[in-house]
Amino acid sequence: MALSGAEVARHDSKESCWVVIHGKAYDVTEFLPEHPGGTKIILKYAGKDATDEFDPIHPPDTLDKYLDQSKHKGAVDMSTVATVEKEFDPEEEERQQRIADKPMLEQCYNMLDFEAVAKKTMKKGAWGYYSSAADDEITLRENHEAFHRIWFRPRILVDVEEVDFSTTMLGTKVDVPFYVTATALGKLGHPEGEVCLTRAAKKHNVVQMIPTLASCSFDEIMDAAEGDQVQWMQLYVNRDRAITKRIIEHAEKRCCKALFITVDAPQLGRREKDMRSKFTDPGTNVQSGQQTDNSQGAARAISSFIDPALSWKDIPWFQSVTKMPILLKGVQRVEDVLKAIEVGVQGVVLSNHGGRQLEFARSGIEILAETMPVLRELGLENKIEIYIDGGVRRGTDILKALCLGAKGVGIGRPFLYAMSAYGFEGVDRAMALLKDEMEMNMRLIGCTSVDQLNPSLVDVRNLGSHITPVPKDSLGHTVYDALVTPSWKPPKAKI
Amino acid sequence: MALSGAEVARHDSKESCWVVIHGKAYDVTEFLPEHPGGTKIILKYAGKDATDEFDPIHPPDTLDKYLDQSKHKGAVDMSTVATVEKEFDPEEEERQQRIADKPMLEQCYNMLDFEAVAKKTMKKGAWGYYSSAADDEITLRENHEAFHRIWFRPRILVDVEEVDFSTTMLGTKVDVPFYVTATALGKLGHPEGEVCLTRAAKKHNVVQMIPTLASCSFDEIMDAAEGDQVQWMQLYVNRDRAITKRIIEHAEKRCCKALFITVDAPQLGRREKDMRSKFTDPGTNVQSGQQTDNSQGAARAISSFIDPALSWKDIPWFQSVTKMPILLKGVQRVEDVLKAIEVGVQGVVLSNHGGRQLEFARSGIEILAETMPVLRELGLENKIEIYIDGGVRRGTDILKALCLGAKGVGIGRPFLYAMSAYGFEGVDRAMALLKDEMEMNMRLIGCTSVDQLNPSLVDVRNLGSHITPVPKDSLGHTVYDALVTPSWKPPKAKI
Amino acid sequence: MALSGAEVARHDSKESCWVVIHGKAYDVTEFLPEHPGGTKIILKYAGKDATDEFDPIHPPDTLDKYLDQSKHKGAVDMSTVATVEKEFDPEEEERQQRIADKPMLEQCYNMLDFEAVAKKTMKKGAWGYYSSAADDEITLRENHEAFHRIWFRPRILVDVEEVDFSTTMLGTKVDVPFYVTATALGKLGHPEGEVCLTRAAKKHNVVQMIPTLASCSFDEIMDAAEGDQVQWMQLYVNRDRAITKRIIEHAEKRCCKALFITVDAPQLGRREKDMRSKFTDPGTNVQSGQQTDNSQGAARAISSFIDPALSWKDIPWFQSVTKMPILLKGVQRVEDVLKAIEVGVQGVVLSNHGGRQLEFARSGIEILAETMPVLRELGLENKIEIYIDGGVRRGTDILKALCLGAKGVGIGRPFLYAMSAYGFEGVDRAMALLKDEMEMNMRLIGCTSVDQLNPSLVDVRNLGSHITPVPKDSLGHTVYDALVTPSWKPPKAKI
Amino acid sequence: MALSGAEVARHDSKESCWVVIHGKAYDVTEFLPEHPGGTKIILKYAGKDATDEFDPIHPPDTLDKYLDQSKHKGAVDMSTVATVEKEFDPEEEERQQRIADKPMLEQCYNMLDFEAVAKKTMKKGAWGYYSSAADDEITLRENHEAFHRIWFRPRILVDVEEVDFSTTMLGTKVDVPFYVTATALGKLGHPEGEVCLTRAAKKHNVVQMIPTLASCSFDEIMDAAEGDQVQWMQLYVNRDRAITKRIIEHAEKRCCKALFITVDAPQLGRREKDMRSKFTDPGTNVQSGQQTDNSQGAARAISSFIDPALSWKDIPWFQSVTKMPILLKGVQRVEDVLKAIEVGVQGVVLSNHGGRQLEFARSGIEILAETMPVLRELGLENKIEIYIDGGVRRGTDILKALCLGAKGVGIGRPFLYAMSAYGFEGVDRAMALLKDEMEMNMRLIGCTSVDQLNPSLVDVRNLGSHITPVPKDSLGHTVYDALVTPSWKPPKAKI
Repeated sequence: MALSGAEVARHDSKESCWVVIHGKAYDVTEFLPEHPGGTKIILKYAGKDATDEFDPIHPPDTLDKYLDQSKHKGAVDMSTVATVEKEFDPEEEERQQRIADKPMLEQCYNMLDFEAVAKKTMKKGAWGYYSSAADDEITLRENHEAFHRIWFRPRILVDVEEVDFSTTMLGTKVDVPFYVTATALGKLGHPEGEVCLTRAAKKHNVVQMIPTLASCSFDEIMDAAEGDQVQWMQLYVNRDRAITKRIIEHAEKRCCKALFITVDAPQLGRREKDMRSKFTDPGTNVQSGQQTDNSQGAARAISSFIDPALSWKDIPWFQSVTKMPILLKGVQRVEDVLKAIEVGVQGVVLSNHGGRQLEFARSGIEILAETMPVLRELGLENKIEIYIDGGVRRGTDILKALCLGAKGVGIGRPFLYAMSAYGFEGVDRAMALLKDEMEMNMRLIGCTSVDQLNPSLVDVRNLGSHITPVPKDSLGHTVYDALVTPSWKPPKAKI
Repeated sequence: MALSGAEVARHDSKESCWVVIHGKAYDVTEFLPEHPGGTKIILKYAGKDATDEFDPIHPPDTLDKYLDQSKHKGAVDMSTVATVEKEFDPEEEERQQRIADKPMLEQCYNMLDFEAVAKKTMKKGAWGYYSSAADDEITLRENHEAFHRIWFRPRILVDVEEVDFSTTMLGTKVDVPFYVTATALGKLGHPEGEVCLTRAAKKHNVVQMIPTLASCSFDEIMDAAEGDQVQWMQLYVNRDRAITKRIIEHAEKRCCKALFITVDAPQLGRREKDMRSKFTDPGTNVQSGQQTDNSQGAARAISSFIDPALSWKDIPWFQSVTKMPILLKGVQRVEDVLKAIEVGVQGVVLSNHGGRQLEFARSGIEILAETMPVLRELGLENKIEIYIDGGVRRGTDILKALCLGAKGVGIGRPFLYAMSAYGFEGVDRAMALLKDEMEMNMRLIGCTSVDQLNPSLVDVRNLGSHITPVPKDSLGHTVYDALVTPSWKPPKAKI
Repeated sequence: MALSGAEVARHDSKESCWVVIHGKAYDVTEFLPEHPGGTKIILKYAGKDATDEFDPIHPPDTLDKYLDQSKHKGAVDMSTVATVEKEFDPEEEERQQRIADKPMLEQCYNMLDFEAVAKKTMKKGAWGYYSSAADDEITLRENHEAFHRIWFRPRILVDVEEVDFSTTMLGTKVDVPFYVTATALGKLGHPEGEVCLTRAAKKHNVVQMIPTLASCSFDEIMDAAEGDQVQWMQLYVNRDRAITKRIIEHAEKRCCKALFITVDAPQLGRREKDMRSKFTDPGTNVQSGQQTDNSQGAARAISSFIDPALSWKDIPWFQSVTKMPILLKGVQRVEDVLKAIEVGVQGVVLSNHGGRQLEFARSGIEILAETMPVLRELGLENKIEIYIDGGVRRGTDILKALCLGAKGVGIGRPFLYAMSAYGFEGVDRAMALLKDEMEMNMRLIGCTSVDQLNPSLVDVRNLGSHITPVPKDSLGHTVYDALVTPSWKPPKAKI
Repeated sequence: MALSGAEVARHDSKESCWVVIHGKAYDVTEFLPEHPGGTKIILKYAGKDATDEFDPIHPPDTLDKYLDQSKHKGAVDMSTVATVEKEFDPEEEERQQRIADKPMLEQCYNMLDFEAVAKKTMKKGAWGYYSSAADDEITLRENHEAFHRIWFRPRILVDVEEVDFSTTMLGTKVDVPFYVTATALGKLGHPEGEVCLTRAAKKHNVVQMIPTLASCSFDEIMDAAEGDQVQWMQLYVNRDRAITKRIIEHAEKRCCKALFITVDAPQLGRREKDMRSKFTDPGTNVQSGQQTDNSQGAARAISSFIDPALSWKDIPWFQSVTKMPILLKGVQRVEDVLKAIEVGVQGVVLSNHGGRQLEFARSGIEILAETMPVLRELGLENKIEIYIDGGVRRGTDILKALCLGAKGVGIGRPFLYAMSAYGFEGVDRAMALLKDEMEMNMRLIGCTSVDQLNPSLVDVRNLGSHITPVPKDSLGHTVYDALVTPSWKPPKAKI
């Protein structure tokens, strides 16, 4: 017999805390202190229905995986559960209006257009989580702007009737030299979550990297794939290696084609925009200002299991538990690329985690330009596959990375924004637009296949320049009387 | 006997499609799939009068050239043709008001002034086509700003009473070292189209380069020339070389003095401003977002005939079909200048097509600074004539190019804008203003003739610098309390 | 018997000038010409109660120290003293409202947030004094922006479970490699003044440097310390060395652990924001414009005793009068660091005095990058301890300084702003936030202790770049028609 | 007997043109075509009183000098002259109100403050003439910003009690290392004109350079000097060398101490702001747009006599007609400094004429940094005195120039603005402020006399950097969601 709402409602405290999720009650009292997202958020829903809060952040198999069966209290008669009253929220009203008025998909001509639509149609907290980055978000922006410091030296008078920008990544033939990189919490942007990306990736023969922190379960994402669609796995290494081993073995069994171990996130970053968007007035219980760890945003809430002790010494263990190619995601200087070759991994992703981790970490494209000449000098350029991610928004960005020696580039936020704004169709169009740009730009640079791309086609002399202009003298700029264009005749007074 | 409107109106579908142009009906049913601008735009006017849409984009001889005589259905009794109802368009109303109030021609003191007037008086779509460029239009703006990285080292105490800035281009004596470069669709800006430019070029003894994609027919533009006025021909090479040959031979017969083969446009660029300005709500037929090729703007509509397979191997063929000097327009690196010398063409234009093709292609002036020292090193500087175009707005820009070794510079958009804003008089004044600037700046740099201009007169050390400042920390800039100038006494209250 | 207000009020002129402070009358007639803040401000309160004006600027022991006992006129019956009528001040009203509405402390996530709150809640004059700097305040801003030109080259796969960022400064073990540097007039920001900082420094085991120009007396600040809390003394050297000697000896007796002699301020800077905020209409007495020394702001008012003749020759004298380690605060080029080693001081602070002294003096971090390679080259890097201050706002700033070889960094304004906005709790939280950032960033850079930080972890190639972009051509930027994101559907008219 | 207004009014055409100036009639019929300012402006006043228009632009002795006595028609009975009706001018009304409300002189703390006041209180045309510069006024602004690329390396612990910034220029002992450089048309800014500057220069023992194009007559300016006050003469060389000789000999007789020959202005520049401010609707007589020479602004109107043929060959002639030291004003590259030494002149002014002549000419300070190392290398640094002008606004600017080897700096516009805003008192305060800055900055840089200033005190590595940032991608900047400071509590609704 189903539990009554009243029964559940009695367990509304630290001492006994039940929550209802998808019509079933769970006793999370003992789990409270272990909850990655903190105790507080659970207690808010103690004795109540937490489904709406739970869903976008947790894969559906979370409770089965992490909560002992003895704590599964069984079905609840939902008609007897008091609904948490939704307050009228004028912000949400306005958002719904914006969703109704949003531009047509065909009006999106590039990745930034999707971001513009997503920014205005996503929930504030979801936007905060996706778009935020470390500290002053300087690295976030640098990631894209670094590409602007690279200029082309195109060849002309090459027969470019047929242009082929397909390539091979880790042995997989792909239609375009980009892949969908791993990003967490897909359901924040769209109720279907990461499987939207899976389906679009299939359609365009693009590899998808499955995130550890997906909203969909790993198996849901694998199941959404079709035929010989290739997927990779991104791994945050758990302090408990048994769990990690289970995850890896399962991924391999499910035919994941590569394992990307994240190495730039021993601790997940402070992202102030995210934290600010989560801030809620703590009421009168405010205590010392030193309590810096409340309302840390989504990033920290979901990441406390990550092992900060992970080190080079652990790599052989990974190699021992899987036959999948292993790649290190988040390598940030050439010295560590050389180490990666030494320990025998199959590849690295030069990345600063989308600017979300260490502020002032250099962009992947800049590290690439540092790395490849050294590898070539040492004859090591074919010993390992080099990928980059971060800031890729245009076909030209992809071309630049390939000219410099990258095997492929990862794209994250742009597809999330396309998905958040328009679902599968958005991601589909985003990929089609990138292909369009790729085709044209391959022609314009005078290359018909990816292997023709080479460093002589780009000028990277300024890539390493990080300049801040001398601060303006406000007075001087105030008094300067700027030139103006011709003045128009005054409108005639209407009679 | 003239066809009736009713008769024509019956042919209003894909199956049978007639259009009326300048009072005559044409059966374009079979031509539909071949139309460079796509089927859709024609079908919009099926069975109706399409003259207003047709005129600015097509030279008057288009139908004779491309449509078999059998499809010419003869005169139509225009009094019986239902006019396509022009909806009241508040945007157009406002534009007409702006045209009425526009500044007097004498208020335009430089090229930018014309652009300011054109921007507000041109039709949105026309402005979109002229002003748009590739991707984020970074290259478009870089083209002019590159000149700002070149600074003068003028000579003093030179007798500059008489200043002569005339020069010779391809054997032609010209009054100023610039020419009117080829730009498409002149009638978008002014009903008379390219012949406006022809007449102004004559007046100022300036060479005009005739565009393949002119709105006026080639012969109209030739006919508008007077006396020994020199014109060149710009060529987009057709996939069908027979057509190309016919065009070249005709140009030579009509005494064109040079052939400029465009080599930077195997595919015409994506120009989002243009695409956006052409976007129209497709109504309820919206399908997959992947359809990226509708509403591609004017650029793609008119260019599908261009041969992407054109290559160095084709050059001898061109040399075999004409005695005109051949120049390659759109060369983008010194290696290809050397190749051009090798294959024996008479000149090159260092250009990125006004920023309309490959985003992040370097500016012509930067390529020039890369090219000339290499040519001088190899003793090849006199083997070929080097031109540049892109971003030229000031007399100083022209001087800089000449100091670095250019034979002349091409100017495109500024004359289009002058024409769009003020017709012939606008172009006339634009040329006069440039001459004025040239005369003064020749004096101020201490040179009395073009051959005295040399690299020691400019400092180009920063020309190759492509810097993006480190993104600003928004918080820091928000909290900074800028200095202010003295505060004024509060106005006394009036009694 | 207490003096009556009427009695005091008679001494209201240059000829006989008494003021009341904390209920006691003082005859300052003879002292008038010596007052560092000028005669004028005292005369404003002649014969009146000056306590409110006196308190924030003067330590409580000032009168005992500087005014002979014979001038202490004794207690005043305050009920008989006419209060200086406070005019209704709409600005102050608004400020009080802002204080009432100010953000909660928990909403401050970084140093800039405190500054944002302080800017709107401090009195105009106080804000003017704290925030102002020399000339156009370019150096002020450069100090922080210089850090933005340094980028990280982090190591990955290092076990960073345990991170320890404690270090040793001048033999003192501290929890974090920053200290509270000396800043004047703490009571302008908060009625308790510098002791707020003392208490927070204690809580976080951070060293505090006590300023010569504190609002609290030296002993008050020492008394506020607890247990083995370490404090240093900052010294402006008095023209009268006897006074200086007394101050040093007293500091040593009270167990100050180091003496920082300020060497960058032979004359205190002109700070126009400060001067402007102090400007008051002089009424009709305006004379020649040449009188440039009225209303010089707080800086000059308090500093006239400083000895501009202080030179290297004086250092042995300091060494002779104290056993405290001596450090030079405000060294600005490597040559002078070498001299400092030569004369045998224990350390230097590379600093430009927070941008308040010489405009266009380089930032401490830039001087550090100049200095350390020279010291290492000469094998002198351990002969002296090098500190920097200026512009430190983020944990990454501290890390960068340490990577380059600094022993520690001084932080001034950020703690003043935190104090001004939220008192002790503000400073407490500010320090906690910096520790939070330090912990995370140590992990992300791949170091577990301060001694692992080294120059290979940073890229400083651009640190010395001081660029001003070529001024914009206003016309060009006016006419450019920037790309826009997709347009939204027009809102439907409501019925 | 005085002429009647009616009599004069008859001569109101090209055929017979009289004008009344200061109550006397002049027949300028024959002079019309020679008038430097053009025929048109005179004809506007033909037969009328032209005094108000004449005065600010012409020295009072103009008519005596240039118009034959036979054309002096004698006194006019002014009561019978119809006044040119002044139309009500709302702009002028507003200006008068601004003058009434202008800040007090004491509120001006630096050169920019004077400019801010002048900008709002000067007549539009006068402001246009003073503030305008060549083309896009990039050079104008670069002149000052170049100083921002120079940073100090100050010395510390130097006894700076006594600071002496007096120096010697061309043998004259002066109190400060700047001089008042020559600028035209002083009466546009202030009715007394250049003599204001003379008196302030005297007061501060500063040299004044007298401009050829002064509004006061040369003798008026000489007469305004007192005692041994030193003045120099700036010379525009007339096509008619007899006139030039007369001017030089007169100057020498009147004890001018040096002759500065302007060499950067064979033709006076196009200054569009000036031209635009002079534009008046030509009514219906508009003809071809090619007429680019009407309304050329004040610059061209007054300069047509300047000899563009002046060359190095003329220098010996100057040396033969005067014993005054000769200096070349407007030298712009080191090669020409070497030539100047060769021909034996006493000095040069490195200058680009305040940005008013050749756009993209380098700043004086940059040319100085190019010049001095070459001179030192060749052992020529003492063979000639080097001055610079352009963009000097701060004491630090002056110090930088002196560190790099300049003997002194010229200051022009700042004194004009101070004069325009506040007359003599303004200039007086401006000079005092600069002295104040000089004194402080000498102390802060650690030098007690001008001869101690040397290149090791400055870092000029970036001085030659002329960078334009890569144009911003508008879309990217639009979609970026900048961080914000903490939000304030919403104001409570008032009850």
